[in-house]
Amino acid sequence: MNINENYLHLQDSYLFITIAKKIAEYQAKNPGCPVIRMGIGDVTLPLAPVVVEAMGRAVMEMGRAETFRGYGPEQGYDFLRRAIANHYARKGVGLGEDEIFVSDGAKSDLGNILDIVGAGNTVLIPDPVYPAYVDTNIMAGHRIAYMDGNMGNGFLPLPDPYSERDRDRKADIIYLCSPNNPTGAVYNKEQLALWVGYALENDALILFDSAYEAFVRDEGLPTSIYQVSGAEKCAIEVCSLSKTAGFTGVRCGYTVVPRALERGGVSLGKLWLRRQTTKFNGVPYIVQRGAEAAFSDEGLTQNRSNIDYYRGNARIIAERLTQLGIWFTGGVNAPYIWLRCPDGVSSWAFFDRLLDRSHVVGTPGAGFGKNGEGFFRLSAFGRREDTLAAMERFTL
Amino acid sequence: MNINENYLHLQDSYLFITIAKKIAEYQAKNPGCPVIRMGIGDVTLPLAPVVVEAMGRAVMEMGRAETFRGYGPEQGYDFLRRAIANHYARKGVGLGEDEIFVSDGAKSDLGNILDIVGAGNTVLIPDPVYPAYVDTNIMAGHRIAYMDGNMGNGFLPLPDPYSERDRDRKADIIYLCSPNNPTGAVYNKEQLALWVGYALENDALILFDSAYEAFVRDEGLPTSIYQVSGAEKCAIEVCSLSKTAGFTGVRCGYTVVPRALERGGVSLGKLWLRRQTTKFNGVPYIVQRGAEAAFSDEGLTQNRSNIDYYRGNARIIAERLTQLGIWFTGGVNAPYIWLRCPDGVSSWAFFDRLLDRSHVVGTPGAGFGKNGEGFFRLSAFGRREDTLAAMERFTL
Repeated sequence: MNINENYLHLQDSYLFITIAKKIAEYQAKNPGCPVIRMGIGDVTLPLAPVVVEAMGRAVMEMGRAETFRGYGPEQGYDFLRRAIANHYARKGVGLGEDEIFVSDGAKSDLGNILDIVGAGNTVLIPDPVYPAYVDTNIMAGHRIAYMDGNMGNGFLPLPDPYSERDRDRKADIIYLCSPNNPTGAVYNKEQLALWVGYALENDALILFDSAYEAFVRDEGLPTSIYQVSGAEKCAIEVCSLSKTAGFTGVRCGYTVVPRALERGGVSLGKLWLRRQTTKFNGVPYIVQRGAEAAFSDEGLTQNRSNIDYYRGNARIIAERLTQLGIWFTGGVNAPYIWLRCPDGVSSWAFFDRLLDRSHVVGTPGAGFGKNGEGFFRLSAFGRREDTLAAMERFTL
Repeated sequence: MNINENYLHLQDSYLFITIAKKIAEYQAKNPGCPVIRMGIGDVTLPLAPVVVEAMGRAVMEMGRAETFRGYGPEQGYDFLRRAIANHYARKGVGLGEDEIFVSDGAKSDLGNILDIVGAGNTVLIPDPVYPAYVDTNIMAGHRIAYMDGNMGNGFLPLPDPYSERDRDRKADIIYLCSPNNPTGAVYNKEQLALWVGYALENDALILFDSAYEAFVRDEGLPTSIYQVSGAEKCAIEVCSLSKTAGFTGVRCGYTVVPRALERGGVSLGKLWLRRQTTKFNGVPYIVQRGAEAAFSDEGLTQNRSNIDYYRGNARIIAERLTQLGIWFTGGVNAPYIWLRCPDGVSSWAFFDRLLDRSHVVGTPGAGFGKNGEGFFRLSAFGRREDTLAAMERFTL
């Protein structure tokens, strides 16, 4: 039996392990200085009351013979797919319920979606970006090309069909993440339209990660790629309730594969349905009732107030950085603030300095790709009192 | 962009669609004859009270800031992995918690495990068997060889290193399912030891599906492949709480990848951990608390009583078939009864006859592979009153 040797080409991911080790060392040496963590992008507010009520009711239903539910549809219960379709309708996107696939989170689907694409595709991935895009494509043995995000393009790379390099490496699959992790940058409609145009022209597929869409408050900015016409013929959108409704430990997301999306005469939605019905058995009924409640009017109001809380944190961070004269982006329509390390220090050197001087932990930009070197990510998902205390201590 | 063309080699799965269509047609013609369904292997009893209580408490925890939990470990919380290790210890199998990976069900892991094996392996699959083994391997483009289950070997195929055919198609990956779906047959330790010996000798990997282990009551029969020594060097075991604790709609299982399992000097456990941390984000905290409760003393007692209920159904079915002189196997240490269609009729012809004469629905054996032709599966997962009524009506 031979193994999948592509796994041997993966780089060991030491980012969060190294961070944990450095914190432990620091705390051993400085027992009186509690550290404030603004590194990992995990939520801290509890679930919205309407979600807790719905899940509590569903648990009770599962304990009574008359209301017990066994296997559900792999692609999700109708009640939840309808709620998600309504969510899209509110943003002007008309979707059929058969175009929506409920998942246990964006991370699963972003990896598993590669099951339905062939070998020999060239995959275009932004740098810096969420590291799972790169790792899942290394595992699948795909050829990876990178596109540079930098201060020049506001960390929003665009197609450049006129460059020699781009013509040489025509992309078959393009990852876009907007609002972006880690930079917090958000594509506008004109920019997304350039990507849709490029994909349609080159028979490419866009994998659009909209996990942070709930943070967009600027009316002019898109929260779904399907707000750009033509996207239904070239894009799969992967989203999650992790950040929208604090579901990081509840696990529910959704993937949209439009009916109009075909390649070589084959419906990608049909392939994905076949993948899911064969290798997945759906999301827990209890969780789906919680997700349905998150999309109710009451749920949207309660979760909007949670997101406003995190956006308030981001504002506090932004104010302090502005005061200190540090360049940054993000934090307005996104929960992440992406700052340039002062004095030209490396992202790991800044990590050490911030821990040492301010007892604050963030994420070195180098962990998100080579273009992340010299930058640093701060998360607004902390508690208000921690964010305030961290920014008070924050010095250069 | 090209698609994964292996998907085009899949046969459309019409089994349960055809069954649903036939039932609908029958009911339209015979409105006064309610049909009893003994087809799909889904549980009907509600969750055990101790599981409902645990999940209810976990839901409340998620609604309060002090007890809220965000991202958990991808491989499962320590408390659940410890409970699963204890479950194995009770059957004489010593496992470290790092050898246990909590999943959202056996179906997911049985498909996803193929991510870590290379292309070019020959996969040996029993016939008849749970259809997902075949479909996931077609999707991965693997070469599939079949081994015949039949009345001669009690639907328990064994390695046959002396046959010309077996030498020609040395198996790299071997699927075993015991207690078996659909036949209900159970391997004994001597038989499993033959498979372990074959795998060790041929550097093969056994994927052991023990989803129905809780139905084994015969003390002499193995409920885990690790009860056979040497298996820790050649076998991955995939199990589920779906049938053990009625979790078909709750979604929780576990996969064991022993520390001693290596191929080409590479630890398969490390590969699987990397797969899971990259493409999965763990099972809901609420569900893991429910699963922990299912493995408590109280949970085991409550679920044992549920399984006894289903085993009681199986006994009722077995008695009726014996009375009618129909050959069958299974139903003692398994929830399925596998019968030979009377009068040499095909499995679909018997389906029609049973529906027409007895208003009872089962699953035609042909749906589980070519060796299933002429056989028929009945499930003991129904309600007692339905099982009794079905067997009263059951005629040839």
